[in-house]
Amino acid sequence: MGNRERIIEESLELFNERGAGSVTTNHIAAHLAISPGNLYYHFGNKEEIIRAIFPQVSEAVHAAIPVSADREITAENVGRYHLAGIETLWHFRFVFRDLNELLARDPILAEAFRELQRWLRGQFHVLFERLIRQGQMRRPDPPDDLDRIGTNKFILWSSWIRFLTTSRAKLEIDQRDVVEGALQSFLTFAPYLEPEFAAEVRAVFDERARRRQLPRSPARAR
Amino acid sequence: MGNRERIIEESLELFNERGAGSVTTNHIAAHLAISPGNLYYHFGNKEEIIRAIFPQVSEAVHAAIPVSADREITAENVGRYHLAGIETLWHFRFVFRDLNELLARDPILAEAFRELQRWLRGQFHVLFERLIRQGQMRRPDPPDDLDRIGTNKFILWSSWIRFLTTSRAKLEIDQRDVVEGALQSFLTFAPYLEPEFAAEVRAVFDERARRRQLPRSPARAR
Repeated sequence: MGNRERIIEESLELFNERGAGSVTTNHIAAHLAISPGNLYYHFGNKEEIIRAIFPQVSEAVHAAIPVSADREITAENVGRYHLAGIETLWHFRFVFRDLNELLARDPILAEAFRELQRWLRGQFHVLFERLIRQGQMRRPDPPDDLDRIGTNKFILWSSWIRFLTTSRAKLEIDQRDVVEGALQSFLTFAPYLEPEFAAEVRAVFDERARRRQLPRSPARAR
Repeated sequence: MGNRERIIEESLELFNERGAGSVTTNHIAAHLAISPGNLYYHFGNKEEIIRAIFPQVSEAVHAAIPVSADREITAENVGRYHLAGIETLWHFRFVFRDLNELLARDPILAEAFRELQRWLRGQFHVLFERLIRQGQMRRPDPPDDLDRIGTNKFILWSSWIRFLTTSRAKLEIDQRDVVEGALQSFLTFAPYLEPEFAAEVRAVFDERARRRQLPRSPARAR
């Protein structure tokens, strides 16, 4: 692994631990035992490092919900999409905890996030339409609500880490909180599903909660 | 109105317009044409002003959803609760746009916000139970979902302004966006309602959207 990759990886850990706001490029260099000059050779400032982390977020989100309109979608698939989405939050939690500040500070990052949002809401639409076609989901009335439900799903997913951090005095988040986020986000469209199908999705969450292990890291870029 | 009240009122406007982060106590004093010393007589720093605004937020939220377990709740009531909740967001939008930063900076404010959150989720619980008792809502299965739905409702409400500001390149928010937030938040429990009752609630939103006027200010403290 080259220094550029090491800087990205180590920065992600430091940002997750302490929040992007309290970590400086000097901290990162010291942590890696490289000179600030070496770090500046790769990245002009902290914003550039954050911007370099973002494609990994995007890649993990794309990998989390690989739904296609042509392939049958099982309850097991739906459960796994939710868990993978929430694991991505966990793995990049500094991004979602400080989202507004990060996006306000960097218009390029803000546009990348909006692009991810458009893609993800589009995927939710494809997922819902596919489940309706399979007879596992009923179409809401009015039908426009389908995209509103996708919007709610997106908001709940992208706000979950912030909700956890503002809901409690201690900032620590654990595995159980994360799995609970999958269920919360699932509830946006669960009432439209066939009860048996919905129960099977929940069984996937229950099984993960029972295992109580830390979430797998999502696939890493490069 | 004394200087203390004028400072609070003017600060709210400036914070809403420019974001709390970019407004200093000097800006506020200049805006009111008072000396910085006069401002410091009332407030030691900006955080104290924000803290003094917060009881108004809390009061507006309490006034927005005055549901009681004993009184029959109509669809008109439910529609109005949602609109009033969203109008509160609009009136204090700087709080909700910068929520994480504000709470991270001030533990007293963070505790006040958590208290408001507990109260509001409790009110949602009372609202849902009342609607179930009236036969207008079915109990979710498993019944624990009732509080999860309340949690989702809280997250959607408190994240709506941030969602709007991160979703678009321009930061301006208008009346239509705000009314749409009432509908989005309503969708968390709409599928559990009797269809006719749900349609009546939506008619309240539609009527407000047609009127297209700016939201009323919620009742002000003092």
